[in-house]
Amino acid sequence: MRAVRFHGREDIRLDEVEEPVCGSGQVKIKSAFVGICGSDLHEYLTGPHSVPVHPHPLTGEKLPTALGHEFSGTVEEIGDGVNGLKIGDKVAVKPNLSDDTCRRCLMGRNNCCDSLGFIGYSGSAGGLSDYVVVNEKHAIHLPELIPLDIGALVEPLSVAWHAVSRSPLQPDDTVLIVGAGPIGLAIVQVLKARGIDTIVVVEISARRREFAQTFGASHTLNPKEVDAVAEIRAITGEHRGTSIAFECSGVQAGLDTVMAGLRVRGTAVVVSLWEGKPSIDAFIEIVLGEKYITGAAIYDLGDFNAVIEAIASGKIKPQPMITSRIRMDEVAEKGFRALINEKDKHVKILIDMSA
Amino acid sequence: MRAVRFHGREDIRLDEVEEPVCGSGQVKIKSAFVGICGSDLHEYLTGPHSVPVHPHPLTGEKLPTALGHEFSGTVEEIGDGVNGLKIGDKVAVKPNLSDDTCRRCLMGRNNCCDSLGFIGYSGSAGGLSDYVVVNEKHAIHLPELIPLDIGALVEPLSVAWHAVSRSPLQPDDTVLIVGAGPIGLAIVQVLKARGIDTIVVVEISARRREFAQTFGASHTLNPKEVDAVAEIRAITGEHRGTSIAFECSGVQAGLDTVMAGLRVRGTAVVVSLWEGKPSIDAFIEIVLGEKYITGAAIYDLGDFNAVIEAIASGKIKPQPMITSRIRMDEVAEKGFRALINEKDKHVKILIDMSA
Repeated sequence: MRAVRFHGREDIRLDEVEEPVCGSGQVKIKSAFVGICGSDLHEYLTGPHSVPVHPHPLTGEKLPTALGHEFSGTVEEIGDGVNGLKIGDKVAVKPNLSDDTCRRCLMGRNNCCDSLGFIGYSGSAGGLSDYVVVNEKHAIHLPELIPLDIGALVEPLSVAWHAVSRSPLQPDDTVLIVGAGPIGLAIVQVLKARGIDTIVVVEISARRREFAQTFGASHTLNPKEVDAVAEIRAITGEHRGTSIAFECSGVQAGLDTVMAGLRVRGTAVVVSLWEGKPSIDAFIEIVLGEKYITGAAIYDLGDFNAVIEAIASGKIKPQPMITSRIRMDEVAEKGFRALINEKDKHVKILIDMSA
Repeated sequence: MRAVRFHGREDIRLDEVEEPVCGSGQVKIKSAFVGICGSDLHEYLTGPHSVPVHPHPLTGEKLPTALGHEFSGTVEEIGDGVNGLKIGDKVAVKPNLSDDTCRRCLMGRNNCCDSLGFIGYSGSAGGLSDYVVVNEKHAIHLPELIPLDIGALVEPLSVAWHAVSRSPLQPDDTVLIVGAGPIGLAIVQVLKARGIDTIVVVEISARRREFAQTFGASHTLNPKEVDAVAEIRAITGEHRGTSIAFECSGVQAGLDTVMAGLRVRGTAVVVSLWEGKPSIDAFIEIVLGEKYITGAAIYDLGDFNAVIEAIASGKIKPQPMITSRIRMDEVAEKGFRALINEKDKHVKILIDMSA
């Protein structure tokens, strides 16, 4: 069968590999739609980070490994002992792997597992393959009314749902989002679904600001043109800062805007990936402002279920996120290179595995 | 009357100044005992920071200003309309000044006031004067059984009480404190008073580690001799990290130990002053560890009351904090210079204003 695999930095290839065998407790999925994620790009341009160079503790495998961790498909085969799914079911895949025995897993934080791995990074199983075999718990049933292309958006939306759940969100909160890439835009949608009215998005790209408005941002600001912090303070009136902020830019200036844009005792949730270590104004923002910084690591099962429910009930309508559909043999050029060179144009490029 | 005033960096003088007049709503206090604080040293060595070079928005005054913000005294005179105090009452002074009209004050956070000022930094009123006139709300009544020297410790202990209250402390929490200066040691005492058993103190000074043990630390670690993070993980068993940590060192290595010493989703409270901006491992600690960083700014009135109650009931016995008593004319040499040159030997040097 075909599989797009990561061989090294800027080296991904459409390879011919052996079809995986469905064991007991497992499900064989015919991959339908696969999204390309910001962390895929990060891996492509500066990796390997998530892709193991030495055998991964959970899979025992190392590169080349199969890519694709945002995906949907249909159940093609079920192994012994699988009771929750049947052949033909539509599924979204919850791709994170955990050892379930480390201190963090034992504290219920499998999303922060010391040996965290991913279907789509850590071994031969990845969504960008004709077939993927996963343990049953990774195959999350999709209701009939959710189409498979939308099913591929459940994973990034779950990252956003988890990030929002990591904040102390209350209905009258005002929220700042810095960085309107796919995750920032997914957070806008989740906030709207959860009843938030004041959603201020700070983003340099005009196209992304438009997307933010489409998804429900109440205000969008271009920090190259306006003093974003002054505007945020004006928008939030007497509080002069939002109560919650999401850092989705992964750059120092973004984190600075997040911290300065928060009111006293406001909470910043960092969702972005960082290569370096940003600085924080420990005295002004943390001590004198008594503000909070925390982070959000991927998702829990509950986040997947909540997103599927929100899509099914129409509270989240993520269709406009899909800005391009390509074939598997176009992944490198019309996928990765397009996201790098025409970053502005796209939110989510989906690979249609049947095309 | 006499007053120790800050004239500039490394320039404090015992000056003769006019005795202040007690106006309506005010209290004239005969100063009894005054502590020298780490922030006084910070001001002395690298200031002016808190001492205003231009007229302070709340006092309209600028340097030279009177020092002394940790102090006790007796009420010498009361102005019209003062009902809560009478002549002869013992008081501890709550020295922070706020405008009570800024957004932060209106949100109940006078401790984070945009125009924050201090008796003892921002004007002619300071504890290191024979007499101090303050608005009634700054004079906190001390029960008869609390002696005046202990009364001068209420302010630093309130900083600690506030810091502990800023954490989500529960009875079974394990706690890390990095830096055992006066505030770190005060936090040890507050944690003991609030029923915490596992209190791990990381501190390079042997003498300060001894003080930490005296006040109730269950474990003390010298990071120059042991791998502090590995030890903290061993002490906390399966959780491999404390649930709460206090950063009281004000240096990058201290903050790094705090973050690495926390378990997943643990909370760091920064209490230290920072001149620079420390870096944080946003990806490993904040995102993948879902840890929290927040800060604590001085105190609220409730913290003062809680500390006085804890001392009165014997839950906090801070006497050993007082490591030296000096006269007012010895402030520069036996006070500031001693704390700088023999940092190890002292926790709190008190100026006995009657000596």
